[in-house]
Amino acid sequence: MHRLLILSKHADDYARLVSAAHLPDLAIASSADPATVASSDAYDVVLGEPSLIRQALPRLTALCWVQATWAGVEPLLDPSLRRDYLLTNARGVFGSRMSEYVFGYLLARERKIFEKRASQAAGNWDPAHPGMLRGKQIGLLGVGSIGAALARTAKHFGMRVKGYTRGSEGCPDVDAYFHGDDRAAFAADLDYLVSIMPNTAATTHLVDAALLAALPPRAVFVNPGRGSVVDEAALADALQSGRLAAAVLDVFQQEPLPKDHFLWRTPNVLITSHTAALSVPEDIAPVFIDNYRRLVAGQPLRYQVDFEAGY
Amino acid sequence: MHRLLILSKHADDYARLVSAAHLPDLAIASSADPATVASSDAYDVVLGEPSLIRQALPRLTALCWVQATWAGVEPLLDPSLRRDYLLTNARGVFGSRMSEYVFGYLLARERKIFEKRASQAAGNWDPAHPGMLRGKQIGLLGVGSIGAALARTAKHFGMRVKGYTRGSEGCPDVDAYFHGDDRAAFAADLDYLVSIMPNTAATTHLVDAALLAALPPRAVFVNPGRGSVVDEAALADALQSGRLAAAVLDVFQQEPLPKDHFLWRTPNVLITSHTAALSVPEDIAPVFIDNYRRLVAGQPLRYQVDFEAGY
Repeated sequence: MHRLLILSKHADDYARLVSAAHLPDLAIASSADPATVASSDAYDVVLGEPSLIRQALPRLTALCWVQATWAGVEPLLDPSLRRDYLLTNARGVFGSRMSEYVFGYLLARERKIFEKRASQAAGNWDPAHPGMLRGKQIGLLGVGSIGAALARTAKHFGMRVKGYTRGSEGCPDVDAYFHGDDRAAFAADLDYLVSIMPNTAATTHLVDAALLAALPPRAVFVNPGRGSVVDEAALADALQSGRLAAAVLDVFQQEPLPKDHFLWRTPNVLITSHTAALSVPEDIAPVFIDNYRRLVAGQPLRYQVDFEAGY
Repeated sequence: MHRLLILSKHADDYARLVSAAHLPDLAIASSADPATVASSDAYDVVLGEPSLIRQALPRLTALCWVQATWAGVEPLLDPSLRRDYLLTNARGVFGSRMSEYVFGYLLARERKIFEKRASQAAGNWDPAHPGMLRGKQIGLLGVGSIGAALARTAKHFGMRVKGYTRGSEGCPDVDAYFHGDDRAAFAADLDYLVSIMPNTAATTHLVDAALLAALPPRAVFVNPGRGSVVDEAALADALQSGRLAAAVLDVFQQEPLPKDHFLWRTPNVLITSHTAALSVPEDIAPVFIDNYRRLVAGQPLRYQVDFEAGY
């Protein structure tokens, strides 16, 4: 018998969804409050938000496996924390949401959606020609499961796709790969740069002044990944000086973005308040259910996190 | 030797693009002004805008074939005009532009792009959940080459697709077809209704009070097709009473939309001023070039218009 603790602000939804799967040999407890976890509870499996699990970690005395409900598991990667359990994150479920986010904003820019609405508000028939994605070039910083979904949508719209990865070149929808020191060649001639990099030591400030300077002035930067990847001061500088056309930012080094942060007032920035790809229980519960079935069948779990690599 | 007249406001662009194709046995003349055409010119082939060609029609004494640069050829369909020539229109080139238009506005709605921008302007971190296209249902009024392109993009985003046609059922991306009197069943439970119907006698006011009443109140109507298809008073009434959530309108019964027209002030209307899928010489010239090669090879031309059916 496995003892599962669901520790999530959506604990009731997850309990309902997991119970409905009638998983074998599983006792289910659920809570939204890590303070309710006692050392004597002896949960061996935990499903929930990394930030909540971190608080209960010292009292999870029988812990074997954590299924995170987020893609980002930074709260559990602090080197001062224990790593004596298997950690799996939520992957393969954010691609379609991310694709709708990224291409929603790309198309809004091409179609001049804000400008057309302003013309309408002024009562003006506005025949200004929109642009189009077809034939334009997108660069993906990171080509995991989310990057692959974005590449697929980009190809659907007739775009050319460049990918920047640590080494992998497995996505058939990427036309050209770049690695390591190739950042300038990767950035050259991009119309859109999208970062879906995880937050790791190797990705910190990967989008810095040098990378931004290698982009053409017409380029738009979109970040639905992690705020730590961006040198925010360098980004604001590039936007203010017109060396970058615009930025669509979902994530920030500090969230919520502080009231007095300069990015609220930087020209040509759109802020979407970390809503690009929300973790929805209906999407995430099936990841846990599939992994639990693998566990009891003695198969390897999917989406295991490497504590050292950070993803 | 064929004598081609290019009659277009983009005459110079078309002349350059057609000349570059080095078509055999072809003399090319070009003008942006139909008044310059003389009866003695003896052009047998004309490439251009239907509205300009109409003005020159009585003086095109040797006319055999007209390639229109638009999809809509209404100016040439007036029953009082001659029909003693082959008329082909521009097809197969608007699908990708229309797809970017329609899905740009669908995603803008799902992602709450206007609301997020208003939150940003107020300095508010806005965690409101966006919606998503995946799992939603789109209805296409008309499934020709443009409708097929929209259906393909809808399937890419995981939507269910209903199609309303006169009889054709040839598009593999349409999940369910409806015809004739099935309008209410077609409209039932749609999240989005998109009209890409041509302007014909059979399509006039196809989107009337009855069809709008059959849509659920959450539905959004998008019209990048022809304004004549919509009963505009019934549409405004449905929007004002909240029986329809929103409308995105590119085309109107009268264009430009008159300054005092009620649609400028109808709630939840977005107006895009007939820019959804502009005819661009780079897209259209290849259609003419391909058809000219067919002509000299004795093959049937593509995209022939049936004067009676109107498309």
